[in-house]
Amino acid sequence: MCPHAYIPYKPVNPKTRLSCVLSQEEREAFARAMLEDVIHAVKDVNCSPVVVGTELFDSEEIQITVSDSDLNQTLNSLLPQSSGAMLIIMADLPLADAPSIKQVISTEKDMAIVPGRGGGTNVIFIKEPQRFHVDYYGTSFLKHVKIARDAGLSYDVIDSFRLHTDIDEKEDLVELLAHGTGVSRTYLEGLGFFLSEEKGRVGVERQGRKTETE
Amino acid sequence: MCPHAYIPYKPVNPKTRLSCVLSQEEREAFARAMLEDVIHAVKDVNCSPVVVGTELFDSEEIQITVSDSDLNQTLNSLLPQSSGAMLIIMADLPLADAPSIKQVISTEKDMAIVPGRGGGTNVIFIKEPQRFHVDYYGTSFLKHVKIARDAGLSYDVIDSFRLHTDIDEKEDLVELLAHGTGVSRTYLEGLGFFLSEEKGRVGVERQGRKTETE
Repeated sequence: MCPHAYIPYKPVNPKTRLSCVLSQEEREAFARAMLEDVIHAVKDVNCSPVVVGTELFDSEEIQITVSDSDLNQTLNSLLPQSSGAMLIIMADLPLADAPSIKQVISTEKDMAIVPGRGGGTNVIFIKEPQRFHVDYYGTSFLKHVKIARDAGLSYDVIDSFRLHTDIDEKEDLVELLAHGTGVSRTYLEGLGFFLSEEKGRVGVERQGRKTETE
Repeated sequence: MCPHAYIPYKPVNPKTRLSCVLSQEEREAFARAMLEDVIHAVKDVNCSPVVVGTELFDSEEIQITVSDSDLNQTLNSLLPQSSGAMLIIMADLPLADAPSIKQVISTEKDMAIVPGRGGGTNVIFIKEPQRFHVDYYGTSFLKHVKIARDAGLSYDVIDSFRLHTDIDEKEDLVELLAHGTGVSRTYLEGLGFFLSEEKGRVGVERQGRKTETE
């Protein structure tokens, strides 16, 4: 099954594109809450989370620390060492749940890839990690598909909006408030965020504040 | 199974949020190409498409014509008349494919709902249409969940990014160029659109043109 789930995570000054609506302290707490939701989902399917963080942070989870620019390099040094299957799942997927992750790790192919919004890659599952390497950033989904093909690996592209929805911008918070069930949604609501409607288009607002983005 | 698939569609001056990158004529041709992709997917699972258009347009498909503001009213007058199950699927879902639609119509519950981006509803499948009514616009996903609950209908929320991804804005074109396989992607590419990367973030550009959005 799935012994280890590696979760890249940035504890300090994360999610800068949310600066328009959240202070740095709030962004850090929010990123941490999203991480908790991902860890929860991963444990629900009996995977052991390993947080691949850019800094050491207070947590009971197993941690590996890397510098931000070395994510690819770090993961690529872990892949050949891994015995058995390996899951790599991003920390900003608060809609992740057991059924969606189960769909990923139960692929009958050599591996499964879940595209993120904007050409990225949100989840990779690989049964023989030594046969694959990662290349994150940019249109990484297309790069990962090509790497799989070049390596002769069969793959599934998993069709899940819960794992497709990474939270980067204010508009993405709509998804979390509409579909979230975990601690990151509760955290946002605790700050006073709620869904609003203007001219038929849905956005988020924060109680007592004007949240300017454009 | 699925006798009729109703597809709301606006042939004249559609997709105005794409005006920054497409002329009106191009938006109309693009909307039509997306409709073709949806019709293709729907037919692939043996549903019969019925286009619910705001104007009559040149097509061999069965058409019902409604005024834009009356979409809810029109659908709500059709629902009780429908014999057997009914699918309502939006025309701006060019990533729709047979597996994702099959997942919807094979629900074991009374109905299935696919949320769209931004709190909307992209697909509804209802086995006993006379027991349901629609309420599109705004956070329609939450409204449809409430209507189902109030009517005592069990429902599945289908987790599909292919059906979740409606194409409204320039950023959404990234999804189509990364994951599309149908005529709407071909149409965009024919106009010179391609994926571009700047500072690690992916966007679309159009050959020989600067496509300003912000």
